[in-house]
Amino acid sequence: MKELFAFGQSILENQPFSVLLGTALDEFEPGKATLKLAVQDKLKQQHGFVHGGVVSYLADNALTYAGGSVLGDSVTSEYKINYLRPAIGELLVAQASVISSGKSQAVCQCQVLAVQDGEERMVAFAQGTIRKVV
Amino acid sequence: MKELFAFGQSILENQPFSVLLGTALDEFEPGKATLKLAVQDKLKQQHGFVHGGVVSYLADNALTYAGGSVLGDSVTSEYKINYLRPAIGELLVAQASVISSGKSQAVCQCQVLAVQDGEERMVAFAQGTIRKVV
Amino acid sequence: MKELFAFGQSILENQPFSVLLGTALDEFEPGKATLKLAVQDKLKQQHGFVHGGVVSYLADNALTYAGGSVLGDSVTSEYKINYLRPAIGELLVAQASVISSGKSQAVCQCQVLAVQDGEERMVAFAQGTIRKVV
Amino acid sequence: MKELFAFGQSILENQPFSVLLGTALDEFEPGKATLKLAVQDKLKQQHGFVHGGVVSYLADNALTYAGGSVLGDSVTSEYKINYLRPAIGELLVAQASVISSGKSQAVCQCQVLAVQDGEERMVAFAQGTIRKVV
Repeated sequence: MKELFAFGQSILENQPFSVLLGTALDEFEPGKATLKLAVQDKLKQQHGFVHGGVVSYLADNALTYAGGSVLGDSVTSEYKINYLRPAIGELLVAQASVISSGKSQAVCQCQVLAVQDGEERMVAFAQGTIRKVV
Repeated sequence: MKELFAFGQSILENQPFSVLLGTALDEFEPGKATLKLAVQDKLKQQHGFVHGGVVSYLADNALTYAGGSVLGDSVTSEYKINYLRPAIGELLVAQASVISSGKSQAVCQCQVLAVQDGEERMVAFAQGTIRKVV
Repeated sequence: MKELFAFGQSILENQPFSVLLGTALDEFEPGKATLKLAVQDKLKQQHGFVHGGVVSYLADNALTYAGGSVLGDSVTSEYKINYLRPAIGELLVAQASVISSGKSQAVCQCQVLAVQDGEERMVAFAQGTIRKVV
Repeated sequence: MKELFAFGQSILENQPFSVLLGTALDEFEPGKATLKLAVQDKLKQQHGFVHGGVVSYLADNALTYAGGSVLGDSVTSEYKINYLRPAIGELLVAQASVISSGKSQAVCQCQVLAVQDGEERMVAFAQGTIRKVV
């Protein structure tokens, strides 16, 4: 388990875009993954909310991690995301899990929470297909 | 038309996240919008491709612009994206257009191209719902 | 609660297409809905599995019921579905629930199970937006 | 070309569900497919519109045909659909085309039109992944 987590962290550290945003791996075990992202002003849009693109990025990455936890080296093939409310707060948390998996692909879901003053609100929900890299 | 374009540019300039990434508005007229993004190392993932989150962000933003071109101030309500191949090259171009629109929402589509050595390849395709902000 | 269920049943009875297929309402309470469909040969495709269109129909309808349970009279605005494995068995069960809801729309999810010889297998998973009819 | 069309027709004739609904293949060539469906009362919902499940079924099937035209024997892996307006009229037409394809899968899109008194209106738009059966 520790090995899986360390492996997950090393991937994140090797993604310049994830380093730029400041993404951290919080949980990574067979069937699920949690990513966290501290909100900074540079991640916002014109109304002061976290940019939807950041929320999507985090959901997409968490989906890939969840799928990768059962498939090994993987990429997101496709996903859909519903934005539920503006992302406001100090922290984003993306919790992804595997719905169903086979040999070469997994279907996963992810909820993205925004934490403001200690209170969590769901700001987005995503579902997607993760494909094993062969 | 010039006014619409200037308005579109001002929104982009007021999105700190778009400034961070370096997104530029290339085309913005009723029913369609094109965004461009010069590829930099900081936008990549561990294999040297542009991070999927960047591709998604650009598609999402272009969808909102296309919808906003007919609805006025708008947000993306939901979208789905299929990644078609690794995003490699110097430039990403997201071209979005309106499929159908009503008073309060528009359904739009977007193709994302990667330009490498002058050659364009489609790297992603998205479809989503844009909702007028009331 | 009984009233809600009776209302749900009356809608189903007034959908000629649902009558044609033989759909039954099994559970209908605030935030969730379950539809059941006995598998008949006429619902199959060329390999003897239940046609994907039937699985989609059932998921779509269950999503609308789940959304409608909190919104009132509603329609599906959009949804995405992942087919997970061939739908084989005597019975399909679509269980939908509300992920998040506001005044005018709800985002819902639905799993479709196929029951064969008493054993349940998830055959599809869907996520969509339900909109209140005004 | 005639062979491809005949092959496509034979598949449709071997889908009991498509026979039940009355689906006809109208166009089938490399990269695109068109399905038609005459509207009957049995295909409607409680407000007299064609049931969304029928629209979805037709889009899903047309997507599979479009993908299958370049991949061979195929199934829909996933798709998303946006309903644009109530489906009213005498005829539904689903026109699908390939956006991008590889060896094992194709991403396709489909518009569904309703024809009423000779006038076509787009009632739904879909995007999905078609996977070659191996």
